[in-house]
Amino acid sequence: MSAAAAQAEGGTVTLINVFEVPECALQASINYWKLSRDFLQTQPGYVSTALHQSIAPDAKFMLVNIAVWESAEAFKAASAKMMQTAGIAPVDGLKFTPGLYTVIETD
Amino acid sequence: MSAAAAQAEGGTVTLINVFEVPECALQASINYWKLSRDFLQTQPGYVSTALHQSIAPDAKFMLVNIAVWESAEAFKAASAKMMQTAGIAPVDGLKFTPGLYTVIETD
Repeated sequence: MSAAAAQAEGGTVTLINVFEVPECALQASINYWKLSRDFLQTQPGYVSTALHQSIAPDAKFMLVNIAVWESAEAFKAASAKMMQTAGIAPVDGLKFTPGLYTVIETD
Repeated sequence: MSAAAAQAEGGTVTLINVFEVPECALQASINYWKLSRDFLQTQPGYVSTALHQSIAPDAKFMLVNIAVWESAEAFKAASAKMMQTAGIAPVDGLKFTPGLYTVIETD
């Protein structure tokens, strides 16, 4: 098991989700994020979230969500429940790559 | 100018840099990050940084760096200077996608 995985065992994790946003779908993608946040923040283990927007208009990842959860299990349970029950309409062409992380180095 | 870009005008920005790490190059990539951090943290406008490692062994982005800078200009000057003077050897096959962001939504 990697150091990061071991560290995550039961500890907080950081969700980093990078969004590849189709042309003209930025606001729709932000609205999609808001609906997901409104659901996820009610779920057990949720700690915080912040949606970041690129300051460059041509970035590969125009939006990046960075959220903190009390555990990997809490996040997985909440997002599975969202998929099954929240009924949030997807945005055509919006592609995201979520991952769970722990901090291994700082300054 | 986008809201994010306007917000960044002279304000702090968040560097989010996702790393696609070749097989067997994880430690070399972490060492590369450390050398870059050691240089960048001495530069004007640097605020903080944290290297995140995926808890899943097969993530597309095994490493993600999240750093805060006093301004976009400060970061750009520091990274240009690093490229010109620091002489940090690149890691074969390591691909990264840096971007500067501002927070547009939280909870």
